Amino acid sequence: MTNEMTAKPDDIFERRESSVRSYCRSFPVTFAKAEGSWIHDREGNKYLDFLAGCGSLNYGHNDPDMKAALIDYIGGSNIAHGLDMYTGAKEAFLKAFEQYILKPRDLDYRVMFTGPTGANAVEAAMKLARLSTGRKTIVNFSNSFHGMTLGALAVTCNRGKRAGAGGVTLGNNAIAPFDGYYGEGVDTTEFLDRMLSDPSSGVDMPAAVIVECIQGEGGLRAASAEWLRKLEKVCRKHGVLIIADDIQAGCGRSGDYFAFEEAGIEPDLVTQAKSISGFGLPMALTLVKAELDIFKPAQHNGTFRGNNHAFVTGAVALEKFWKDDSFSKSVKAKGKILRQRFEGMVERFARDGDLSLRGRGMMQGIVFPDGEEADKVTAEAFERGLIIETSGGNDEVVKVLCALTISEEDLNRGLDILEDSIAAVRGGKASAKAAE
Amino acid sequence: MTNEMTAKPDDIFERRESSVRSYCRSFPVTFAKAEGSWIHDREGNKYLDFLAGCGSLNYGHNDPDMKAALIDYIGGSNIAHGLDMYTGAKEAFLKAFEQYILKPRDLDYRVMFTGPTGANAVEAAMKLARLSTGRKTIVNFSNSFHGMTLGALAVTCNRGKRAGAGGVTLGNNAIAPFDGYYGEGVDTTEFLDRMLSDPSSGVDMPAAVIVECIQGEGGLRAASAEWLRKLEKVCRKHGVLIIADDIQAGCGRSGDYFAFEEAGIEPDLVTQAKSISGFGLPMALTLVKAELDIFKPAQHNGTFRGNNHAFVTGAVALEKFWKDDSFSKSVKAKGKILRQRFEGMVERFARDGDLSLRGRGMMQGIVFPDGEEADKVTAEAFERGLIIETSGGNDEVVKVLCALTISEEDLNRGLDILEDSIAAVRGGKASAKAAE
Amino acid sequence: MTNEMTAKPDDIFERRESSVRSYCRSFPVTFAKAEGSWIHDREGNKYLDFLAGCGSLNYGHNDPDMKAALIDYIGGSNIAHGLDMYTGAKEAFLKAFEQYILKPRDLDYRVMFTGPTGANAVEAAMKLARLSTGRKTIVNFSNSFHGMTLGALAVTCNRGKRAGAGGVTLGNNAIAPFDGYYGEGVDTTEFLDRMLSDPSSGVDMPAAVIVECIQGEGGLRAASAEWLRKLEKVCRKHGVLIIADDIQAGCGRSGDYFAFEEAGIEPDLVTQAKSISGFGLPMALTLVKAELDIFKPAQHNGTFRGNNHAFVTGAVALEKFWKDDSFSKSVKAKGKILRQRFEGMVERFARDGDLSLRGRGMMQGIVFPDGEEADKVTAEAFERGLIIETSGGNDEVVKVLCALTISEEDLNRGLDILEDSIAAVRGGKASAKAAE
Amino acid sequence: MTNEMTAKPDDIFERRESSVRSYCRSFPVTFAKAEGSWIHDREGNKYLDFLAGCGSLNYGHNDPDMKAALIDYIGGSNIAHGLDMYTGAKEAFLKAFEQYILKPRDLDYRVMFTGPTGANAVEAAMKLARLSTGRKTIVNFSNSFHGMTLGALAVTCNRGKRAGAGGVTLGNNAIAPFDGYYGEGVDTTEFLDRMLSDPSSGVDMPAAVIVECIQGEGGLRAASAEWLRKLEKVCRKHGVLIIADDIQAGCGRSGDYFAFEEAGIEPDLVTQAKSISGFGLPMALTLVKAELDIFKPAQHNGTFRGNNHAFVTGAVALEKFWKDDSFSKSVKAKGKILRQRFEGMVERFARDGDLSLRGRGMMQGIVFPDGEEADKVTAEAFERGLIIETSGGNDEVVKVLCALTISEEDLNRGLDILEDSIAAVRGGKASAKAAE
Repeated sequence: MTNEMTAKPDDIFERRESSVRSYCRSFPVTFAKAEGSWIHDREGNKYLDFLAGCGSLNYGHNDPDMKAALIDYIGGSNIAHGLDMYTGAKEAFLKAFEQYILKPRDLDYRVMFTGPTGANAVEAAMKLARLSTGRKTIVNFSNSFHGMTLGALAVTCNRGKRAGAGGVTLGNNAIAPFDGYYGEGVDTTEFLDRMLSDPSSGVDMPAAVIVECIQGEGGLRAASAEWLRKLEKVCRKHGVLIIADDIQAGCGRSGDYFAFEEAGIEPDLVTQAKSISGFGLPMALTLVKAELDIFKPAQHNGTFRGNNHAFVTGAVALEKFWKDDSFSKSVKAKGKILRQRFEGMVERFARDGDLSLRGRGMMQGIVFPDGEEADKVTAEAFERGLIIETSGGNDEVVKVLCALTISEEDLNRGLDILEDSIAAVRGGKASAKAAE
Repeated sequence: MTNEMTAKPDDIFERRESSVRSYCRSFPVTFAKAEGSWIHDREGNKYLDFLAGCGSLNYGHNDPDMKAALIDYIGGSNIAHGLDMYTGAKEAFLKAFEQYILKPRDLDYRVMFTGPTGANAVEAAMKLARLSTGRKTIVNFSNSFHGMTLGALAVTCNRGKRAGAGGVTLGNNAIAPFDGYYGEGVDTTEFLDRMLSDPSSGVDMPAAVIVECIQGEGGLRAASAEWLRKLEKVCRKHGVLIIADDIQAGCGRSGDYFAFEEAGIEPDLVTQAKSISGFGLPMALTLVKAELDIFKPAQHNGTFRGNNHAFVTGAVALEKFWKDDSFSKSVKAKGKILRQRFEGMVERFARDGDLSLRGRGMMQGIVFPDGEEADKVTAEAFERGLIIETSGGNDEVVKVLCALTISEEDLNRGLDILEDSIAAVRGGKASAKAAE
Repeated sequence: MTNEMTAKPDDIFERRESSVRSYCRSFPVTFAKAEGSWIHDREGNKYLDFLAGCGSLNYGHNDPDMKAALIDYIGGSNIAHGLDMYTGAKEAFLKAFEQYILKPRDLDYRVMFTGPTGANAVEAAMKLARLSTGRKTIVNFSNSFHGMTLGALAVTCNRGKRAGAGGVTLGNNAIAPFDGYYGEGVDTTEFLDRMLSDPSSGVDMPAAVIVECIQGEGGLRAASAEWLRKLEKVCRKHGVLIIADDIQAGCGRSGDYFAFEEAGIEPDLVTQAKSISGFGLPMALTLVKAELDIFKPAQHNGTFRGNNHAFVTGAVALEKFWKDDSFSKSVKAKGKILRQRFEGMVERFARDGDLSLRGRGMMQGIVFPDGEEADKVTAEAFERGLIIETSGGNDEVVKVLCALTISEEDLNRGLDILEDSIAAVRGGKASAKAAE
Repeated sequence: MTNEMTAKPDDIFERRESSVRSYCRSFPVTFAKAEGSWIHDREGNKYLDFLAGCGSLNYGHNDPDMKAALIDYIGGSNIAHGLDMYTGAKEAFLKAFEQYILKPRDLDYRVMFTGPTGANAVEAAMKLARLSTGRKTIVNFSNSFHGMTLGALAVTCNRGKRAGAGGVTLGNNAIAPFDGYYGEGVDTTEFLDRMLSDPSSGVDMPAAVIVECIQGEGGLRAASAEWLRKLEKVCRKHGVLIIADDIQAGCGRSGDYFAFEEAGIEPDLVTQAKSISGFGLPMALTLVKAELDIFKPAQHNGTFRGNNHAFVTGAVALEKFWKDDSFSKSVKAKGKILRQRFEGMVERFARDGDLSLRGRGMMQGIVFPDGEEADKVTAEAFERGLIIETSGGNDEVVKVLCALTISEEDLNRGLDILEDSIAAVRGGKASAKAAE
């Protein structure tokens, strides 16, 4: 399966693209075509894609139905850019969102089309929480990631990224420990409750908590359903809003459309981006309970609010995958395969318990002792034709974020490669399957 | 030319779209197709588009060459989303940008593909300015607009939009007066020089100034070339960086590719968005001098950095319109028409000098005494089939932001409608042409 | 012992003094003379003073030796105000401080005379910690109190006081749990260690922690010596400075001169105020390790840095009480009496464990179920001629802060009154002694 | 008049006092006694004091009446420290303040005794302005100085002092140009009016402006009465409060009790400190219009609110100097002498207009081309037995802040020394008088 020697990328990138570029450093080839779970470089080499746009391609690359609809839309000279004016594409998307997502879940959100980045959806949600409560503090959780713009960065925990702000004060937030942060058996919602109950805790009564039900960049930490329910209870007790950041864990990644569904909680605000267009096109939105929908017209504006191409593909995605629960069931089934295979790998490779599992649904990973080893594993995998990345504060988690539409065969194929890669790094013979 | 009665937009918008929606309130129809300078609603009514995505459609709607290239790209299952990995589409865009934009202007910037919103490009530029200087203050100008995320909002002047932040402190900036802010003959760069020279001015030595050469949302205020040169001199004298925010005024809107070209200055950082894709697709970038290109990999990251569809259309735009100076010349010629027609309107309609002109190139407008009257004019224009909007602190400026590719015939047609609309509001008989 | 009806205070106070006045509301009489532990109102009524200037009168009112020295100083037309110029009074104070405090404890601090408020000493210490580390975050502990100016208020936990800032963002700090905050057996220094070790904890590496070894306003919570040593270890491990705020707990209140002595730790910066003058005169200082003594001349300035009258009385206090350990021993002995009497009261009055003890040395109190009951107790005490106050987030702790020089007889006399007062509120017969 | 060689100060200062000490560096002797305008070092050398505690000794050193009252008070074991409880000393001070200051001027302020530093009075005033308006921005003026705690430092303009904060963001303020900042004939209140009127000026509607009628540390810049009246008009027009910082310019320094009296304006809040005790004892207060007196009890608290010794001397000062207008008249007369003598010196010494005058009343100075020359002048003066200091952003202003009670003879004696000192630095023969 190893690819032939690929040509070095054109030196225009070294010459002209900013040093901030990152993924291209791990996968230094020039990519061209892509379909489903497979991506091709310009030399014709094929790679199995277990990164999938970091959660932006939950339905795989170039889904044929979305592709057809998009070509048809463009070919008909339909509106590409219309600011936030009404278009047929937006109407269709909103109707599909109402019909397939909101109504079946008995949710009654308004949809705010923010600038097409997750950070923008987060900034809008935090503004609304502050405006509607008259409070300023947002509680975020240890290891959380919510974006790079200054508002979102203030609730993002990674010190290296925070240092990028160049010394301006990031504030108006308070950190609370995520589920499991202090180890098994420690109910960290009690800490939050104490923080809110004590008039001298040092934390002003917050506007909202912002929570990722499954932390992506923070290292695939999944909150338990029970913890989320307790969190909701604590928030309701103190009149604090809940913002669910469903940017990476949403759009089916957890097995349900929203990652918070399993717990049965009902956030006041929800942020979405990544896979909302279904096709990898930039789009983001913030779901808002009606009573919090208090922005004045254009009070949070921007040029690319609402991307008509994304509305077209997004509407196809909603109808194709969410009109009944069959897709959700298949994702959960694949999530179980993932868990079983990972358990096998941990059993095979761990020494003195130095490997562990993290995550939920199709967002799971193996925790290595350090980022160095995890990096070696992903480099070995790439050598073997698998694109896979790490996350976590020390990049110590090798994470699977493959397309939810992946076939079981491809899923196992990729996991075989991963297993071989770990073996190459840690020692141990290749798995039977991978050796075929 | 008045359109027939259009059907009311579907009530899904009222039911589901957030109250923050804005342009759709001025133009309450459902749009469908669009080509060049014309946009059609679902009932088949045609409108001349003098808003053009607020500067995002400088080359008009659905340019046929871009459209063909995009359909071809999508049809070939080429990569839509690849995070910031290398793709052929990105390579082609970078090469075109180097060949048609940077080299002919003897500019040596690195290109940072930020999240696809202007605000994100601004946030990245401000971070780099702070990181590289070790200073925190950014000087922005009165009436400036740079975006809605907290970092960008801090340097945005509109009080209503600032209030959207819900009370968090917006800071780390200092306001300086824009060209002409204190009237004719007052050189406001002297104020800035004083502010920087006086060790007790109250303003800490800033990292950078951020300037729009032509302020868009601030009301089409254009800085003179001389003022910009003086500004550059003051900044160089004090070791302060210059960030040119070319998001609305760039991509040819001023007549040159960059709005700062006329003045011959060389900013340290440049932000672009809106028309960079040429097709209205979300994309933004920050141009960075090599010595300021100091982000570590992924230190400012995001999912949609680099939009391959936008690279495809953007590369077409660069080759089609910027391989020589013919397009630039035609834009400047149309800018003159605009100026002449506006001068005529002011002469015809002004009472005691209560109307005035603002702007430069294809970014000009008429200043009305208040926002109420300006709104009446744009409403009259819409009745007559012209989409046109206002800007300014009080929405008092009726601005023309039509496609740069507009025919002189359509340009005059739209200006005739505008003239009639002013006449309808202010009194006076319709112009000869418009009456035809 | 009950005082006769006292005259109502003059209505000038109601007419002219700001609504912010507070203690006078609990003790609405006009006070006149005072000596040692006794204070007299204008009508000649005597009160035993268990508040003692909230820790500012550790040596009692009008100590005769200090009084004589001060009258002598003033009578000789010695300098009262000399900015921060050298005076003989300052020289004598510094020499006494070096001889009686620093040398015997093998401490090598520089002395910074800040503006004469504890808040100013705290602001100076935080500036130095930030300047010397190049970091901005200060870790403060739940329930901490460090002052009312914006820098100090940011590390003060009480929400009501924070609200006084009128909505400006209080930041550049992170909250850590104080000793015992999460109950017995939970080592909260581990939480801090985790917060500092995890590069994605959400807390940037701090400049310093600021800690009150015994929290005053926070409700007489005393950190154990072991906890303080662990705290020091965690700070040293991560290169984080330690600021000991010894404003209320210092100058002998704990039994030692510094409240941190018992633990054997060595803070990098120490703040003092309240009893440093020994006579209740305004004075504050910040002790600074030599390598942190990096302010440029006047970089933190102010008019009243160094109060010569306070130097005079302060030098007497140092020589009189700290030239050997006899005073320290007597304070510790009285602290034991306090503890025993409080234990007796808790045993007598607690129902289902609803009363508890807090504090250390001569800074101890009884925790009542709520502030309302605690207030009733102090009101009853005042009726009986005892001035005593509450502290804590809900004002639920009745605290003894009597002069350290109090006689055992007076100490017991006051405690008898307190016991009677509790009995009056909770039921139960008066103590034998108090009934005498 | 030159003093004999003075002994070097004890090395305890070098060994133990923080590097932040400043005035002692300019006057490196150890001072002992002081009376009126004269101060003696320990060797018996006499100096004429033209610094006078930087405005804290408006009535000279050790005024005999205050001294007697204070000794009497202390001797009688009257209360030195009583937190903010009612005492006879406070009552007497308030009555005197009402009778001699408020009533004759028809002012109806409440008196808030803040912590005894000017910075604390400023912090309290800014909190009240924010709390009462619900706005956060405070407008301060170029070159202003209001204190070193973070709230006050944010409205202090000196970059070196701001740098002392160690990088934390100083904000929630906006800078406006002081009277004359842009030269003669430029009415800077129009700039403020524009800043407030323009909804897109970049400055949010402020809570208040804070203004020193005569800037002390900023270099003795005096606002004209007309400018202050215009400032008041602009503030009233926009509903913005006025805080007059009368800390250095108040208590008679301008010739009137309050520096704003001449202009006839009525600030909403006034801060006082420095000479309020009359004796150089630490004390500060904030005067508050009744409707702004909205702090809850203890919402802005502190240990040394109200200094009983200062009440005693302060009450004497009010009765002795302010019961009629004779003192005010004498101060104004001496201010004229000062002006005349300075005009003479400028005429004598200026080359090409390189010297100028600044200030008003008994707060005037000569502006030198740079701080280096000004420092030489004050060093020469000290050699000749005159204590005098500089101020201004570059320490370029040699300022006279002598006691207001100085005899005309001593005033001229000091000015003679100053003139000789300038001659020594600039060349030119000594004045006739000084040569005597």
